Amino acid sequence: MSADNVKFDSNGLVPVIAQSESGSVLMMAWMNRQTLEQTMKTGLLTLWSRSRSEVWVKGGTSGNVQRVIKIQRDCDGDALLATVREAGPACHTGAVSCFDAETIFKGAE
Amino acid sequence: MSADNVKFDSNGLVPVIAQSESGSVLMMAWMNRQTLEQTMKTGLLTLWSRSRSEVWVKGGTSGNVQRVIKIQRDCDGDALLATVREAGPACHTGAVSCFDAETIFKGAE
Repeated sequence: MSADNVKFDSNGLVPVIAQSESGSVLMMAWMNRQTLEQTMKTGLLTLWSRSRSEVWVKGGTSGNVQRVIKIQRDCDGDALLATVREAGPACHTGAVSCFDAETIFKGAE
Repeated sequence: MSADNVKFDSNGLVPVIAQSESGSVLMMAWMNRQTLEQTMKTGLLTLWSRSRSEVWVKGGTSGNVQRVIKIQRDCDGDALLATVREAGPACHTGAVSCFDAETIFKGAE
């Protein structure tokens, strides 16, 4: 288990999907090598904020940290899936998931 | 319901997470405005292949299409979550999910 097979993009970033143990997709964010390694060391989901250009421990301010159960990479190594246990809502709006924001399409059932 | 609140990046792309109805995260890929609109029109997950620079109907070759139940955007509109019904494995390796590839980290239970 290591970050060796993870492919970071030209900005040094890889997208990470956070999914709760119960199966809800909570958010999508980004990691660089440093924050991936920090996540592995601390067990707390630690991200790279593209808007603030800084290390971002998820929930570091709100207390709604996400404890990482496992991280899987995809087949070509350019996306990560983190299974997490949340201490509170993932979204700054107070919603459980950032994807509760808006359904933009409904298909045939 | 529309693509109006979706923010495409400087390359005109938005990341999309495909999740099965049963909750498995299957893959992460990219859409541009054209393939998002095509998805909404046809109901079949249609992506933009960054490596091939072409429209990519998921499963168009293999037959393992993904019928889209719904698409949600996240709170800041720069990521999409598509709930899909798969006709077969999502991954070109034959795995159900592209994230079955490798567990790169296991945290404390």
